[in-house]
Amino acid sequence: MAFDVPPGYRALKEADIPAYLAGIPTVAARLGGRAAEWKIREVGDGNLNFIFVAEGPTGGIVLKQALPYLRLVGESWPLPLRRAFFEHQALVTQARVVPQHVPEVFHFDDTLALTVMAYLSPHIILRKGLIRGIVYPRLADHMATFMAETLFSTSDLGQPAAAKKKQMAVFCDNIELCRITEDLVFTDPWRVADGNRWTSPQLDATAVAVRTDGPWKRAAQEFKLKFLGEAQALIHGDLHSGSIMVTADETRAIDPEFAFYGPIGFDVGALIGNLYLAYFSQSGHEATPGDRDGYRNWILQTIEAVWTLFDQRFRALWTKAHAGDTFMPALFAAGPEQAAFTSAQEAYMRRLFVDSLGFGGCKMTRRILGLAHVEDMESIADPDRRAACETRALRLARALMVDGAGFTDIKAVNDTARAVQREPAKVPA
Amino acid sequence: MAFDVPPGYRALKEADIPAYLAGIPTVAARLGGRAAEWKIREVGDGNLNFIFVAEGPTGGIVLKQALPYLRLVGESWPLPLRRAFFEHQALVTQARVVPQHVPEVFHFDDTLALTVMAYLSPHIILRKGLIRGIVYPRLADHMATFMAETLFSTSDLGQPAAAKKKQMAVFCDNIELCRITEDLVFTDPWRVADGNRWTSPQLDATAVAVRTDGPWKRAAQEFKLKFLGEAQALIHGDLHSGSIMVTADETRAIDPEFAFYGPIGFDVGALIGNLYLAYFSQSGHEATPGDRDGYRNWILQTIEAVWTLFDQRFRALWTKAHAGDTFMPALFAAGPEQAAFTSAQEAYMRRLFVDSLGFGGCKMTRRILGLAHVEDMESIADPDRRAACETRALRLARALMVDGAGFTDIKAVNDTARAVQREPAKVPA
Repeated sequence: MAFDVPPGYRALKEADIPAYLAGIPTVAARLGGRAAEWKIREVGDGNLNFIFVAEGPTGGIVLKQALPYLRLVGESWPLPLRRAFFEHQALVTQARVVPQHVPEVFHFDDTLALTVMAYLSPHIILRKGLIRGIVYPRLADHMATFMAETLFSTSDLGQPAAAKKKQMAVFCDNIELCRITEDLVFTDPWRVADGNRWTSPQLDATAVAVRTDGPWKRAAQEFKLKFLGEAQALIHGDLHSGSIMVTADETRAIDPEFAFYGPIGFDVGALIGNLYLAYFSQSGHEATPGDRDGYRNWILQTIEAVWTLFDQRFRALWTKAHAGDTFMPALFAAGPEQAAFTSAQEAYMRRLFVDSLGFGGCKMTRRILGLAHVEDMESIADPDRRAACETRALRLARALMVDGAGFTDIKAVNDTARAVQREPAKVPA
Repeated sequence: MAFDVPPGYRALKEADIPAYLAGIPTVAARLGGRAAEWKIREVGDGNLNFIFVAEGPTGGIVLKQALPYLRLVGESWPLPLRRAFFEHQALVTQARVVPQHVPEVFHFDDTLALTVMAYLSPHIILRKGLIRGIVYPRLADHMATFMAETLFSTSDLGQPAAAKKKQMAVFCDNIELCRITEDLVFTDPWRVADGNRWTSPQLDATAVAVRTDGPWKRAAQEFKLKFLGEAQALIHGDLHSGSIMVTADETRAIDPEFAFYGPIGFDVGALIGNLYLAYFSQSGHEATPGDRDGYRNWILQTIEAVWTLFDQRFRALWTKAHAGDTFMPALFAAGPEQAAFTSAQEAYMRRLFVDSLGFGGCKMTRRILGLAHVEDMESIADPDRRAACETRALRLARALMVDGAGFTDIKAVNDTARAVQREPAKVPA
């Protein structure tokens, strides 16, 4: 193998798994019975790793092992195994504040770049639920909590500078995975790049137009600058609907291997942007027009609730759980100072809102014109219908990135999404 | 000693210096002659270190050794020796782009937290020159170059993300020195804090008013948030007029031990804010009113030139020396895209301008109401005159912090400074 792998690393095969797990007493106890009884299957449909599920008489686990290359592209795109370390660090940090919204970790093996964690069952990937039109009544509530708690607690409002700097030093090394985001999300859709693809020929003219759209390109680079330089909090870094496992009652965010100290809006935007992708994809999944009207509405309600609850909870934490070195509530104890504090909070949340919209727009664009697409759109077999859905999504994405500051609130964004959905989806000139 | 010092560390005494220097061939050669001939003297007037000058028959050097506590306060305030390492790292990084504006380093000793560097002679500390009323015709030119080159080259416009993240991981450890800035510059002047002092009783009411001024306090915390979270570039971190050595022809920035990846405006603001302190202090140094009118004008011209030249050179570097992962000029090659690029530059420089004013205001305020004051003001013997100068400086400082976005350009700031200077300096109600 030509990759830079630590001594002792080897990619486990299905046959290796029982013996490996049997060597970890807590995991063996969870599975129950004898190793020979455990059923092992490889289930990875992601881009980066091997995922094995092991089920025994009393329980199941997931074993996730990093490969030294990007699975989606192949051995030509090497990727550091150390991402397993960053994922583990992020999961542990998130579990401190929202253990109910991340998978429980049972074991981490640095040499094998391998994590053993809870097998989430009967959870499915949120994206697949959104494609099927399943309503998740607690999704907004849970994800608002996940984001408010994880992002606040690692921000300069939620932890002292010394603690933040120590952890930031560690995550500064997550260079290669950040680099993937930098290229694929913020740059490639706006230039000719290997791997870019789109629904062709329907979106050919659109792809050209996007590459020469100065204001849109400027916005993409401004958000990239924020991504590179704004160390606001330990972000998940890849919080789309494929990184969220759901049931009607439970919601857990998985796969934080892209985690680093970056802009809060990147996480919020990833979720909101992917929900808008789901929204615009619905007309591609309707047997007859209007079939998914109710579901479309539910998605918009969910988006509104995600932002509204996130905003409320982040502010509440600021007041109740402040542990940072700036904006200490005690500094603003008197009456007129409280007004200044409130207006500072207002301005802070407003910036997060505009950031979230813009980052959301970046994530939407790259899923239509870049390397990695989403099943919401890809599963629409008819390319004309798919292109119509994608064209509408791109219209909103541009508005979110270029004119984000023009939206007064999340309802206004939803109004624009509805208006875009009603428009005929001609390819833009 | 109760401090956390590495094995082998010892504070050198004057008598130890010749033997130590004789052991470094390049330094011994520079001094010339025999060690017994070298004249050693301790010259430190700073807050943090011992500084020895050694002169031999053919040249001189400075030996700077860190102490494990803050010299200004005493052993009750421990400070990590590792700041010598950060200073050395910063000097080496700055020397890559502006060797003519930093002291040349001959030797670094990690164990002793000790750097041997060029003895700058006949340079004096800029602050002392400003107090004496000496004109430095090349100061603005040189400092604009120092800041544009060092800040651009370490920004996300001037270097790839991977290089930045690697160096940022190192500087994330400079926790304690950053903490001093966080407390002394952004928080203590706006609260009751040990060590705060001011010209009393003249400014007693002012100090109380500042501590209950909601919008001013809000601005201070917003700039602190930027200081904590905006990793724009490797900043000097303490770029006031006491950290700049000058002659009529030469300008060198010294003492970057507070260096870390922070907001660019903090460096620019440190310089501009300290020049405004010098400006408002002049009426305290006049033998007869009006004596320093010409010099006051020169200071304002210098401030205008510092910003104007910095702005020009930073933009020029962006176009000519771009090496970062965002805003690559090739992305904006076509005509209409160039307009988008130019307007992005405009917005970026505008943010730097408003940041610089605000950080400058923070630095001015802390020098009048906080722990560490400046000789510009302290050397005014008559407390009534001093308080009048300080009151005017505080008025501008508040405007820079609270209303910075209201200034169209640096000339407008100078106009306000002139207007403040003309006002009678009553203590604000």
